[in-house]
Amino acid sequence: MLSFKNKLKKSIEDKSSNLCVGIDIDKNHFSSDVKLQDLKEYSLKVVDSTREFAAAYKPNLAFFEEWGSEGLVWLEELIQEIGNEHIIIADAKRGDIGNSAKHYANAFFNHFNCDAITVNPYMGADSIEPFCSNPEKGVYVLCVTSNPSASKIQDDSFKNVIDLTNNTNQNKNVGLVVGATKMEKMEEVRALSKLPFLIPGIGAQGGDLENTIKINEQFIESTLINVSRSIIFADDISAAAREFLEKMRGCVEG
Amino acid sequence: MLSFKNKLKKSIEDKSSNLCVGIDIDKNHFSSDVKLQDLKEYSLKVVDSTREFAAAYKPNLAFFEEWGSEGLVWLEELIQEIGNEHIIIADAKRGDIGNSAKHYANAFFNHFNCDAITVNPYMGADSIEPFCSNPEKGVYVLCVTSNPSASKIQDDSFKNVIDLTNNTNQNKNVGLVVGATKMEKMEEVRALSKLPFLIPGIGAQGGDLENTIKINEQFIESTLINVSRSIIFADDISAAAREFLEKMRGCVEG
Repeated sequence: MLSFKNKLKKSIEDKSSNLCVGIDIDKNHFSSDVKLQDLKEYSLKVVDSTREFAAAYKPNLAFFEEWGSEGLVWLEELIQEIGNEHIIIADAKRGDIGNSAKHYANAFFNHFNCDAITVNPYMGADSIEPFCSNPEKGVYVLCVTSNPSASKIQDDSFKNVIDLTNNTNQNKNVGLVVGATKMEKMEEVRALSKLPFLIPGIGAQGGDLENTIKINEQFIESTLINVSRSIIFADDISAAAREFLEKMRGCVEG
Repeated sequence: MLSFKNKLKKSIEDKSSNLCVGIDIDKNHFSSDVKLQDLKEYSLKVVDSTREFAAAYKPNLAFFEEWGSEGLVWLEELIQEIGNEHIIIADAKRGDIGNSAKHYANAFFNHFNCDAITVNPYMGADSIEPFCSNPEKGVYVLCVTSNPSASKIQDDSFKNVIDLTNNTNQNKNVGLVVGATKMEKMEEVRALSKLPFLIPGIGAQGGDLENTIKINEQFIESTLINVSRSIIFADDISAAAREFLEKMRGCVEG
């Protein structure tokens, strides 16, 4: 099996793409009597329409869990359907004490067979380490997020988070979640860390693609840029993904 | 329907108990060929053996999710089985941007029908607020946790977390998770906050029950003390819960 680091590099190279498609199938986007089966079919359509453009897929657990056990059946089927040609990141943002973290790692890496997970650093290194023991599986730690009120806690903490990830990266499988809505903050994080970035906030959230690529140009073979709503809810999903990818490639080459 | 605040008070008064039983049915505690069905039965035994002693139950999602969709079927059945006479806290430690947080709130409050959830404050107020809109549902925000490496991030952040919870408590349904392994830190948090505390770290983790009760004596009608392993894996679960409760009552009265 490839290490996560190499699988990530290979996915990005093979597709000539840094695009991660966020599979956030929000039921509120549909009519109020929408059925789980409709959302399942829609999520498969998203995957089939974007396979050639995406390096990675990132299902957000919130949209599956709200359907309870049947929502996780959906997630199991969806992951099966995506297959092995893309990085699959469980956007779970889990974080718990060591023993519970071990069981979360078992859930997402072994049961659901994801390649990577997003985790929350608030509980410190021993809530992160249990996710990092297998070099084949990646761990993206929330560092600077793209939502408006994030700075309240993160301004005092993000440097400690970077420290913490530098120390938990013995297996070269740790990355950072760095939102694209604050370019100065991204530059600051990039100056302190060479880890792979997973970057949300482009697209519907309004982040700046050109500057994001510029800040990360030396690390482009390990950078994933996530787009959700502006692709998955486009009238023509495939065209929206292609268009975004062309824009992205233009920035990388420019 | 009762508000969360009143349901919490009533549960603690009715049972004369501040005990929250953590339902962390770790499969590694059993033989390696243990089946999900065995754990289901064990979890029901835990509930039936502790009903008269517990004010609340706190299932930790990690131990359910590692079984995938079938694990959530187990959680759905378990919550049904617990019924309405106890506070049920989903120990999920979720935290995500506003729209995803709304869907997590929908999952735990509406689908799973829990009374409360634990949430992670790293992403700031807009990741907490979506959980707080219904006064009938409680929100315990991680503040100071009981694991060894927690201080790395929390020492710089816990006062901001307290601020944040004071501001998101318009519906009087917000509490704090404050670990019992650091008594000085608990005193400091108590001096800054009158919110209900959910206190892990007593029992297997070695926290100090007597000082915990002392620090919280003015707030005892809203305080929950969580015990997991030392009750749920005791040879006689019922006797262990009774013994712990007697010790706890002794501290409250003394």
